[in-house]
Amino acid sequence: MPGAGALMAAEIAEQPAVFDAVVTRRAELAAVAERLAAHRPRFALLAARGSSDHAALYTKYLIEVLLQLPSGLVSPSTTTLYGAEPDLAGVLYVTVSQSGGSPDLVEATQAARARGALTVAVTNTPDSPLARIAEHAVEIGAGTERAVAATKTYTATLLTTYLLVDAARGGSGEEVANIGELARATLAGSAGAVTAAMERYRDVERLVTTGRGYSSATAAEAALKLAETSYLGARAYSGADLLHGPVAAIDSRTGVIAVTSRGRGGDAMRDVVPAVRDRGADVLAVGSAAADVPASARIDVPATAEEVAPILEILPLQRLALELALARGGDPDQPRGLSKVTRTR
Amino acid sequence: MPGAGALMAAEIAEQPAVFDAVVTRRAELAAVAERLAAHRPRFALLAARGSSDHAALYTKYLIEVLLQLPSGLVSPSTTTLYGAEPDLAGVLYVTVSQSGGSPDLVEATQAARARGALTVAVTNTPDSPLARIAEHAVEIGAGTERAVAATKTYTATLLTTYLLVDAARGGSGEEVANIGELARATLAGSAGAVTAAMERYRDVERLVTTGRGYSSATAAEAALKLAETSYLGARAYSGADLLHGPVAAIDSRTGVIAVTSRGRGGDAMRDVVPAVRDRGADVLAVGSAAADVPASARIDVPATAEEVAPILEILPLQRLALELALARGGDPDQPRGLSKVTRTR
Repeated sequence: MPGAGALMAAEIAEQPAVFDAVVTRRAELAAVAERLAAHRPRFALLAARGSSDHAALYTKYLIEVLLQLPSGLVSPSTTTLYGAEPDLAGVLYVTVSQSGGSPDLVEATQAARARGALTVAVTNTPDSPLARIAEHAVEIGAGTERAVAATKTYTATLLTTYLLVDAARGGSGEEVANIGELARATLAGSAGAVTAAMERYRDVERLVTTGRGYSSATAAEAALKLAETSYLGARAYSGADLLHGPVAAIDSRTGVIAVTSRGRGGDAMRDVVPAVRDRGADVLAVGSAAADVPASARIDVPATAEEVAPILEILPLQRLALELALARGGDPDQPRGLSKVTRTR
Repeated sequence: MPGAGALMAAEIAEQPAVFDAVVTRRAELAAVAERLAAHRPRFALLAARGSSDHAALYTKYLIEVLLQLPSGLVSPSTTTLYGAEPDLAGVLYVTVSQSGGSPDLVEATQAARARGALTVAVTNTPDSPLARIAEHAVEIGAGTERAVAATKTYTATLLTTYLLVDAARGGSGEEVANIGELARATLAGSAGAVTAAMERYRDVERLVTTGRGYSSATAAEAALKLAETSYLGARAYSGADLLHGPVAAIDSRTGVIAVTSRGRGGDAMRDVVPAVRDRGADVLAVGSAAADVPASARIDVPATAEEVAPILEILPLQRLALELALARGGDPDQPRGLSKVTRTR
């Protein structure tokens, strides 16, 4: 029988190889990317739940910034609970679900297709109900995920939607050509800093994560991962939202994880970190621009184009969630009550 | 000098009178509602931050369900940080901001108008930069909000956007005709239950709030209010998301506030509450269907049409945030670091 957290640890470590494989299969996305480009959607809607919701948030930024399409996250329950039937002709509807089995997402996607949307399912399970119901299915190819906390399926989804959006705009994927290698460097290079961060935060009362722009997705996913594995009261805020109110809840008993990578999102964090420090919080900066903010500690991540930074930023934070869970006496592979597919409607 | 929390307490208590006034001025919304109905937008985008983001989430449900328009929440930073310039011809762009002064929302709204969107600003400050930049400005008329934590501006925004959407579909506002009276009954009828809930939760390590459908907005706003006034680690989850993973972080040290009003959203919570109870959590049910779930305690709220329930559900939760803050030795009127307008970009 494997030790506590062994599944999660193995799947975190597997990510560089998964990235290599996803990049190698890039050509398989060409047909869907061409369809996307030819379709010229009016706008894009994204549907997802849980970790996939954060992958969808990242994808929304990609679609808005790189494809210049307006884009929004939908609430599947307007369809599944309230029976809304808007006209979706000419709309791109992207559903993200590693299992492809959540009944509400399947139902919402089926309804969107019936109402005229171009439906694309992004899933790790090509023979799933979601993949069958959508007009196009994109497989992330992360391999079976056995740990309950999503790690490799999250990052493989980010990489896959990046490659898809990049191909739709005529790109060659060059910004992620060596992403597997960079992921290896990220994991190897951050191990000591992650363990040091675990020591800092093992007895903290609460954690707040924050980021801006593309890195908002990293902050949201890190908070979820910490909450679901470490039983911590962890909340994510956009760096912009944070200064609007929640900063009041930050004090010397709060650990703040600020995601700061090179680029405009990271630049915008330069106002946020000093404001949080002023409240006495311990600030851990994570990212390729971690050295540019006055943090208490940092975890460096190799520099990339800003739009692909979230694929790497989350890696040390997954490790931190795992190490904190173990240090606090939990087993992230055995969180009570958590299952991979939930039958919500 | 007023006592701790006096400003917030006064503004919570003021809400029934504010609702009376908003309903009385319903006719002032007719011109914008007619413009909305005549415009027949392709879809709707909503931009907001902080508490207003939760009002925008509520408005998104209204637009999707009552107007049958696809709708999504935007990230202003795709415009303000990354300079995205999507074509927004025929798009309804609603910006929600009580102050009307957040520079990023003003900039994003200006950009949306320049790109063809029908822009509507919902604000408490009619002479604000946001109200001036938008094609249409809708005033919520909550009066000056002096407490730092938004209460009456949040609910007045909900009521105003409900009246606007209802008028756009040809409604007469009858579901909220007596909302002021119901708000009085809610506050008076819940006082004892709120104080009992404060006693239950004053020493809790963390709180989770949850709701589905329209009430998702209530859960999100309640968590923010608790976090920003009571220094609590409070997180909100859709009832659907909660079963996907975060339920693992719920145990006997967690207080769970489940918003359950009559209707489809409340019905969908019937699966969620037992799952959370099974984990040993203390569950407080709040809403007009609180008696229908197996909670540990409840706060009843008068029954209404489901789509207007969020206007009442939040009232006892604002009181709970206030009482918890005071019980824990804080002053919600003086949270360090919080200002009403934040100059984020």
